[in-house]
Amino acid sequence: MRKVVVVVGLPGVGKSTVLSIASEKLRERGYAVRVVNFGDFMLSYLLQRGVVRSRDEIRKLPLATQRELQESAARAIREELERTPGERFVGIVDTHAVIRTPVGLWPGLPLNVLRELRPDLIAVIEASPEEILSRQSRDSNRVRSDYSSRQLLEELLNTYRYYAIASSVISGAALAIIANRENQAAQAAEELVRAIEEL
Amino acid sequence: MRKVVVVVGLPGVGKSTVLSIASEKLRERGYAVRVVNFGDFMLSYLLQRGVVRSRDEIRKLPLATQRELQESAARAIREELERTPGERFVGIVDTHAVIRTPVGLWPGLPLNVLRELRPDLIAVIEASPEEILSRQSRDSNRVRSDYSSRQLLEELLNTYRYYAIASSVISGAALAIIANRENQAAQAAEELVRAIEEL
Amino acid sequence: MRKVVVVVGLPGVGKSTVLSIASEKLRERGYAVRVVNFGDFMLSYLLQRGVVRSRDEIRKLPLATQRELQESAARAIREELERTPGERFVGIVDTHAVIRTPVGLWPGLPLNVLRELRPDLIAVIEASPEEILSRQSRDSNRVRSDYSSRQLLEELLNTYRYYAIASSVISGAALAIIANRENQAAQAAEELVRAIEEL
Repeated sequence: MRKVVVVVGLPGVGKSTVLSIASEKLRERGYAVRVVNFGDFMLSYLLQRGVVRSRDEIRKLPLATQRELQESAARAIREELERTPGERFVGIVDTHAVIRTPVGLWPGLPLNVLRELRPDLIAVIEASPEEILSRQSRDSNRVRSDYSSRQLLEELLNTYRYYAIASSVISGAALAIIANRENQAAQAAEELVRAIEEL
Repeated sequence: MRKVVVVVGLPGVGKSTVLSIASEKLRERGYAVRVVNFGDFMLSYLLQRGVVRSRDEIRKLPLATQRELQESAARAIREELERTPGERFVGIVDTHAVIRTPVGLWPGLPLNVLRELRPDLIAVIEASPEEILSRQSRDSNRVRSDYSSRQLLEELLNTYRYYAIASSVISGAALAIIANRENQAAQAAEELVRAIEEL
Repeated sequence: MRKVVVVVGLPGVGKSTVLSIASEKLRERGYAVRVVNFGDFMLSYLLQRGVVRSRDEIRKLPLATQRELQESAARAIREELERTPGERFVGIVDTHAVIRTPVGLWPGLPLNVLRELRPDLIAVIEASPEEILSRQSRDSNRVRSDYSSRQLLEELLNTYRYYAIASSVISGAALAIIANRENQAAQAAEELVRAIEEL
């Protein structure tokens, strides 16, 4: 059983916590786990090849170039996961279904990237607008957001899900929608682990 | 005129009734009609080849294997429809836009399946949450479902539609959204027939 | 910098006005701009080749034939845009994310068309249901539409957006969602220009 799982989620849903608990749980159950953060991997991949000298330089490249680099990074990630030894191996790619850029919404899992990654599962970590706002306010001491932010977040969560659905239909990967409730990250992690074990 | 039509719908929308009336109507109007149920076809295809010995065995295969079998079945269905004689021929594939599995939501019409089926039309049969609940309660003598089921069904119907839209954009097939209203299956069938005749 | 931008929007959102202001602005800033209306281009392309003799004849062709012609037109548009000289060149394709036909909803930017057009950006021009209804009533002296039209328009706007999202994920193009507010077309045009300049 060697599987590739892509995990995505709107900033503030608590993806990192869920991912770290899930990795731990998978290791406890005898899986070899490798978590690759797409953005970090892409940066070090480009730094090594001398394509850029900093993360900021990537963002300043024309979008067409960024898209080519995104595809190369996806190919390199899949190759790296293939090379990782282990019979019971789970490769987890931590990335985004969609990214807000100055140009507009940029798909994180478009067809050309999916063709390289070939995921078995796309997991979307979700949280309620209230939970996202509460996490944000704890992180930044910001004042409590008003109703319009809740509405906006609701819309963002829906849009995020459409992107993930489109990526699922393009790749043929299954889609697990996992709710990460306040103080229940372990439960969300357990759901993710169970989905992976069922693959 | 030889056409391939894929018909999908959430369980409980009354897809079978609509399909059987529509087939009858098409035959009355001089069409050769062949209805293939994707799941049944796949099962007998795999039984014949000795790949599995029961439907349950398919579900226990790893999802990656199931996906390959799904693609092979799609190819075999298209080939069978191509072989069926008739100048005015309509091949109808009865399947799902998305299926709930222990892993999560599994697309019934992903890119690799659509590449094989090459449908001209994807028809989504829909019904209101109330109609679905009422059909379910008649089927199973269950007590009337509460408000939360109605909300959940509303969400499921929306999600189902997004899957069908994604499949339509991937395949380039037209998308007919057909409302099957209580006691008006004949009207829904007529809508489906008219869409097919316009192809 | 040579870019291809696809601009779509539900009839009544004011796409033409935004497009003509945006083209003007781009030219003022030193860009060579070519706007191609997909439908018009396709018609003259088919007239020249003697495939049809009128726009109506296209609509009467079987959908499968229309889909092939749509793909050929997309290829010809991309070739024409490639041939247009200019170092700072913006090719704008004015088309639809989805079209209502007698068969059902027909995707304007399916995978096979996107493979030919290879857009860098898909821009969706949106307006509120109220603004669309008000534009429609000015255009046709129709009486003010009732609440149900507003609800229907809201649903259409959402559906339109899902089509655009699916096309964005398939093509890997960025997606700019631009609100065209009453009497503020210049502002919407400026947003479009800024997105293009960021490409």
